[in-house]
Amino acid sequence: MTPGTSLRELRERKPLIHQITNYVVMNETANATLAIGALPVMAHAIEEVEEMASFAGALVLNIGTLSTHWVEAMLLAGKAANAAGNPVVLDPVGVGATRLRTDTAKRILDEVDVAVLRGNPAETAALAGVEAEIRGVESMGAATEGVELARSAARTLGVVASVTGVTDFVSDGERTLVVSNGDPLLATITGSGCMSSALTGCFVAVAPPLEGAAYALAAFGIAGEDAARDAKGPGTFHANLYDALYGLQPEMLDERARIEEV
Amino acid sequence: MTPGTSLRELRERKPLIHQITNYVVMNETANATLAIGALPVMAHAIEEVEEMASFAGALVLNIGTLSTHWVEAMLLAGKAANAAGNPVVLDPVGVGATRLRTDTAKRILDEVDVAVLRGNPAETAALAGVEAEIRGVESMGAATEGVELARSAARTLGVVASVTGVTDFVSDGERTLVVSNGDPLLATITGSGCMSSALTGCFVAVAPPLEGAAYALAAFGIAGEDAARDAKGPGTFHANLYDALYGLQPEMLDERARIEEV
Amino acid sequence: MTPGTSLRELRERKPLIHQITNYVVMNETANATLAIGALPVMAHAIEEVEEMASFAGALVLNIGTLSTHWVEAMLLAGKAANAAGNPVVLDPVGVGATRLRTDTAKRILDEVDVAVLRGNPAETAALAGVEAEIRGVESMGAATEGVELARSAARTLGVVASVTGVTDFVSDGERTLVVSNGDPLLATITGSGCMSSALTGCFVAVAPPLEGAAYALAAFGIAGEDAARDAKGPGTFHANLYDALYGLQPEMLDERARIEEV
Repeated sequence: MTPGTSLRELRERKPLIHQITNYVVMNETANATLAIGALPVMAHAIEEVEEMASFAGALVLNIGTLSTHWVEAMLLAGKAANAAGNPVVLDPVGVGATRLRTDTAKRILDEVDVAVLRGNPAETAALAGVEAEIRGVESMGAATEGVELARSAARTLGVVASVTGVTDFVSDGERTLVVSNGDPLLATITGSGCMSSALTGCFVAVAPPLEGAAYALAAFGIAGEDAARDAKGPGTFHANLYDALYGLQPEMLDERARIEEV
Repeated sequence: MTPGTSLRELRERKPLIHQITNYVVMNETANATLAIGALPVMAHAIEEVEEMASFAGALVLNIGTLSTHWVEAMLLAGKAANAAGNPVVLDPVGVGATRLRTDTAKRILDEVDVAVLRGNPAETAALAGVEAEIRGVESMGAATEGVELARSAARTLGVVASVTGVTDFVSDGERTLVVSNGDPLLATITGSGCMSSALTGCFVAVAPPLEGAAYALAAFGIAGEDAARDAKGPGTFHANLYDALYGLQPEMLDERARIEEV
Repeated sequence: MTPGTSLRELRERKPLIHQITNYVVMNETANATLAIGALPVMAHAIEEVEEMASFAGALVLNIGTLSTHWVEAMLLAGKAANAAGNPVVLDPVGVGATRLRTDTAKRILDEVDVAVLRGNPAETAALAGVEAEIRGVESMGAATEGVELARSAARTLGVVASVTGVTDFVSDGERTLVVSNGDPLLATITGSGCMSSALTGCFVAVAPPLEGAAYALAAFGIAGEDAARDAKGPGTFHANLYDALYGLQPEMLDERARIEEV
């Protein structure tokens, strides 16, 4: 399996990606999901999340704008996805910034079998018990110790850790993949991390968690590279980004993906 | 009354369109409402929806991201709009996918006098009691039996049924209008169905439900045609779509609307 | 201090701007905050707003889509920001349209020390006790009596009143600044008022309330002028607007800001 064959399969099967995500980025993650070729569905009511999660191809949980009802829904949905054998992706937005976020992410990791934890270095470090400072949900820590962080988070938390920044590090605790696609403009729009989590959901619906997580980041990074080409700033870049995701071709993804095992 | 005279009247009267809609598309439906020339207002608190619905030109209910408080608010708003004689549009997003959505849409249809039900074929079929499969809220069923579906849904449910897909079918149970404007790129962005419901709200604020629903779909479809012209994908298409709605002129709408009575 | 030096300081300090705002514009205000150079964080749970507000550079409260839990969160956050000495900006969206909105805005003004009230003429008049009619949240009243309205609202409510329209009026009750930047296309997209409130939060994190409020409006207006240049309507204008905010330079802001003390 390669990034390209995964993308081809994704577009043939069009998996339904159930997302319980934050208010800020819902439109963005739904559009990224559609552009890559999957079908997004947003549903957060405790009365329906179990049904939805059980027939979706993957579930993406994102704690960017929490409230207590939503936490309950995430736990119910996560358990239903687990019971149905569907992979769960967790995006621990802003973990470490407030107790509610830290406690919620930990509780999800305790009660739900999370396949991929997709976060920035500071968020990942906070959950893995490494010392770290988080300053706002948009901050991007330096990723020099990325391999070690991803490996240690994967082992401690029993997940595939997908740690994203200028360079991305994806580890299952044994193998670690380094992904070097992307463009600095990705850091200038809100929700780029959340979009990468949604795309991770799309790819792990058709590929194993370690590979799927890396393929998603390569695809998103390449789209970022293409979107930057004639962008005049974050606004035109943002519009171009959906064009680029939609225009990604399997061969092109295989050719341009910069994924290296270390 | 023609599509063009309706658009002219809409822009003169600038009706307030009260929308209780899903989190994913709120920004999009508000911007579509503004671009066509009406005034959007989003309000969902049970403490204020009755006031808002009673002085709005139309009310649009969209069940895309439900929770129990919102259901209650939709019912209160719907009844207030009915009492004030203001038309109600219902968009039953994802009906058939979960019991909560099906039950909620049915309850609204029972307790509120809905002027226009704007849905895709699968959603409409689910409510009209016809056998159908829904796979995610973005799926687009084939519309070959569209006329029959729209007519039967209109009769069974006592609404104007506005069934949208590659071709759109709008029926009050007696008369059926077929609308053939649009572009395939409309299916590549989230919320295009929701936007068509919001625009339906705008047009039924100034035209009878059957005609208003058809005029809205023609206007939206023509805007889609224009937006596709120099789009490079879903992102630039999406930005162009608001430009095109804003740029629609009454004469142009009359000339290019492909509405046929069958 | 000038608009340009404020912008320079903002980009160096990158203040965290805590926003409890409406569902419709969250993505837009977050992106505007990022584009100008600050860091947005959205958080509304009563369990975390006090923590977040106490370490943010400013707090922006926007009542565009209220519900009771959110009102409670706004009050808690506002008091925590006050206790920490962080400025609070209030955007009273739709005040005067429903009792809930009017009561909530008044309650926030009573219980929280609001640094800047950023509203349109009708909203400001409603809170200052002047007779006014509001027709929807997007309406723009004529601003001929702007200076008097801003001054009187500032005195009555004990805030810096930032009254925006074709021309903007910012007053602390003694001094009044008139800001004349902007473009008519700003009125064609939803959330432009909300974005100007978010930017006000960014600037008052680094400048005094009166000056910060005026600088924010000048910066937003100049970005609007630039965004309009090759826009074909509201959609391309909207994308360009983030490019223009991101591209703003301190010198350019000083040169082009049309701020006049009256």
